[in-house]
Amino acid sequence: MKDVASRAGVGLKTVSRVVNGEPGVTPDTERRVQEAIESLGFRRNDSARVLRKGRTASIGLVLEDLADPFYGPLNRAVEEVARAHGALLINGSSAEDPEREQELVLALCARRVDGLIVIPAGHDHRYLEPEIKAGIATVFVDRPAGQIDADVVLSDSFGGARKGVAHLIAHGHRRIGFIGDQPRIHTAVERVRGYRAAMEDAGLVVDDSWVSLGITAPERVRAAAEAMLEGPEPVTAIFAGNNRVTVTAVRVLAERERPVALVGFDDIELADLLGITVIAQDAATLGRTAAERLFRRLDGVDDEPALVALETVLIPRGSGEVPPSADR
Amino acid sequence: MKDVASRAGVGLKTVSRVVNGEPGVTPDTERRVQEAIESLGFRRNDSARVLRKGRTASIGLVLEDLADPFYGPLNRAVEEVARAHGALLINGSSAEDPEREQELVLALCARRVDGLIVIPAGHDHRYLEPEIKAGIATVFVDRPAGQIDADVVLSDSFGGARKGVAHLIAHGHRRIGFIGDQPRIHTAVERVRGYRAAMEDAGLVVDDSWVSLGITAPERVRAAAEAMLEGPEPVTAIFAGNNRVTVTAVRVLAERERPVALVGFDDIELADLLGITVIAQDAATLGRTAAERLFRRLDGVDDEPALVALETVLIPRGSGEVPPSADR
Repeated sequence: MKDVASRAGVGLKTVSRVVNGEPGVTPDTERRVQEAIESLGFRRNDSARVLRKGRTASIGLVLEDLADPFYGPLNRAVEEVARAHGALLINGSSAEDPEREQELVLALCARRVDGLIVIPAGHDHRYLEPEIKAGIATVFVDRPAGQIDADVVLSDSFGGARKGVAHLIAHGHRRIGFIGDQPRIHTAVERVRGYRAAMEDAGLVVDDSWVSLGITAPERVRAAAEAMLEGPEPVTAIFAGNNRVTVTAVRVLAERERPVALVGFDDIELADLLGITVIAQDAATLGRTAAERLFRRLDGVDDEPALVALETVLIPRGSGEVPPSADR
Repeated sequence: MKDVASRAGVGLKTVSRVVNGEPGVTPDTERRVQEAIESLGFRRNDSARVLRKGRTASIGLVLEDLADPFYGPLNRAVEEVARAHGALLINGSSAEDPEREQELVLALCARRVDGLIVIPAGHDHRYLEPEIKAGIATVFVDRPAGQIDADVVLSDSFGGARKGVAHLIAHGHRRIGFIGDQPRIHTAVERVRGYRAAMEDAGLVVDDSWVSLGITAPERVRAAAEAMLEGPEPVTAIFAGNNRVTVTAVRVLAERERPVALVGFDDIELADLLGITVIAQDAATLGRTAAERLFRRLDGVDDEPALVALETVLIPRGSGEVPPSADR
């Protein structure tokens, strides 16, 4: 490298920058260094370089929605663990599109991340097998991996929903609605399963008109809530399947004269002031646990992939403790 | 490339993958291709490759806090524009640390992003000059660039704060407090300047105890609010300098018997239900405008860098229309 630097008329640091693809080198200087390398027979070898450095010290995080506040604390927790390990975090969003997820994951791999944390949009992650074999550690968070064996860290969605619905039943409700996310999303399915289990535990039969799964856009959630509040078997309580559903449900219920009970999955900022009872996931612990598992893998720990399911917490604040309206 | 493929016993696509640093190649295959390249005297030339491809079709976005909901819609708007241009978005957070910002920006440049959108934490961006010269388009958003000439897209923080404080004055307030972010942050300085201008417009003298700038952690904001509510010249209204300040101010004011007026900079989810009057920035338009300027640059438009300042909107919801308490 000294010979290259001397021939190109630059410093050792500049040669190192060009060889390692680091920034801060003008195209002209890069060309001179490349010519010096060529004339001296010095050859860059990517795989050897990566092996020698061990790490390029960056991890990738693929989220499903950059604008969902649930992912904020998760994202920040991953970043803090990465920083503690001297690694940079780069991330991107699949926007809940499996093709986009794959494109982004492979783009991050091509940019030589050492490890990946993925909130999966898709259900088939076999496309990741060559990357994992090539040494890119991967941990899935919030939802399981599809068709591959990998570490997974998520919240107990089934248990959380069951606990929240049981709470409504304990406060006297018998006709309880469930509004959740699209049925192709693992957490949505687990939570509706928890709802059905709690109803069954109490010997209650679920009317078809009480369950509504679909996108969480305000218009869809509003229509679903109004339909189950005004149908032939009107509900006296609603279980909201995630934070996006809860914010719309709170608005719909605020417009109504008779109180309707509400428990939401996921905590929400200012829910304390609005008295919204929630089943809270610990998004920061999800992120931290996933990141710590990833760095264990990067440190060479090679045990069997594991599934970690974190407990949820019921936070009663008023909306979930409203009894059924008298005339219903 | 045909010769390399034939010598290494692989397909053309695999050679292309190795040469372009794309994923999906095992270390063993990569080594064979590298050896074939070496023995045939074929040399990878990064700068030529980038020029030939024109774009690697990715842009980077550097935020200051991944968990601040203000950046959610901005982030998503940038992503939508990137996607419309067939580009991937990768991002990361400076955590309001200028060194971290520089590290992350240069790491993204080293990963061959074509362009960058930066919410700057620091005040000196000369470190970006070699990258910009090397053709990496850069747009700053939310805050201006420091010591370099670049496109900037931000909200009119000065005008917004002035409008919000004038609104409180119009409702009879004379003793108005301002709680804002750290004084090294451009938006914090502009907003306190807007506050002072509105007070001066009305001929009101600002008491030193009414202005508090610092970190936006709940404890700090709570202490600041309580001090100005209980001091010798107690305020009857508070202007909160950003969304982080507002959420804590709302909690503090909810605990008090006498109503205190509040206007917050930035809209907040569920602020409608809580009746919080705000000066709203349009975070999505900020992101979209910045991303569109970036792609104009990437399309070769080479006019002078410009500063775009977006208007803010006053949304009255009740908290900003409370008159001063009678006995004050």
